[in-house]
Amino acid sequence: MACLFCKIASGEIPAEIIYQDDEMTAFRDIDPQAPTHILIIPSQHIETLNALDPSHAELIGNMTLAAARIAASEGIQQQGYRLVMNCNQDGGQTVFHLHMHLLGGRQMLWPPG
Amino acid sequence: MACLFCKIASGEIPAEIIYQDDEMTAFRDIDPQAPTHILIIPSQHIETLNALDPSHAELIGNMTLAAARIAASEGIQQQGYRLVMNCNQDGGQTVFHLHMHLLGGRQMLWPPG
Repeated sequence: MACLFCKIASGEIPAEIIYQDDEMTAFRDIDPQAPTHILIIPSQHIETLNALDPSHAELIGNMTLAAARIAASEGIQQQGYRLVMNCNQDGGQTVFHLHMHLLGGRQMLWPPG
Repeated sequence: MACLFCKIASGEIPAEIIYQDDEMTAFRDIDPQAPTHILIIPSQHIETLNALDPSHAELIGNMTLAAARIAASEGIQQQGYRLVMNCNQDGGQTVFHLHMHLLGGRQMLWPPG
């Protein structure tokens, strides 16, 4: 198991874990781009958005719902936040274990990168 | 029904619709920030990410799966793309009908806004 995010989910590599259940782990990005910058990853090793099939739909939805709950616990739910998922080179994906970025605590700009 | 995106979903206001089924509509953003810039909206009027409840999980997952399929039909699936959802002021949300941005066809930058 060479995947950095699998190792974070399993606890083999330490991270500041915000939330964890059977299907996902949320932890702070080590190179934050906003006052709140949290990554939400599935427990299952899914490389990219392109690898999703209909069996993953509820998981992705649950990750999105978790992001909104985490935004609330971070105190940024009402002021607002941005969710970002990158796929492959043009998306800027750097770790090939699907992940959702939750960013907030500042005004996010447009375009989104 | 004063919502712009409800009117696009119903056909009352024209848009360049890419995909539509019972639960979602995808159409080109009128102010594109990348060569491919498509919005995916639920048919149901949900104001923000904060209004989601567990009954919406599969819908959000299906929107994400649709985004990956649309990326394929746009010819950008392998090169990559970015999915973005904005919530409220700091997220940069401007239309209060939940929507997912699909952006690609160029290198997306970091930070994501």
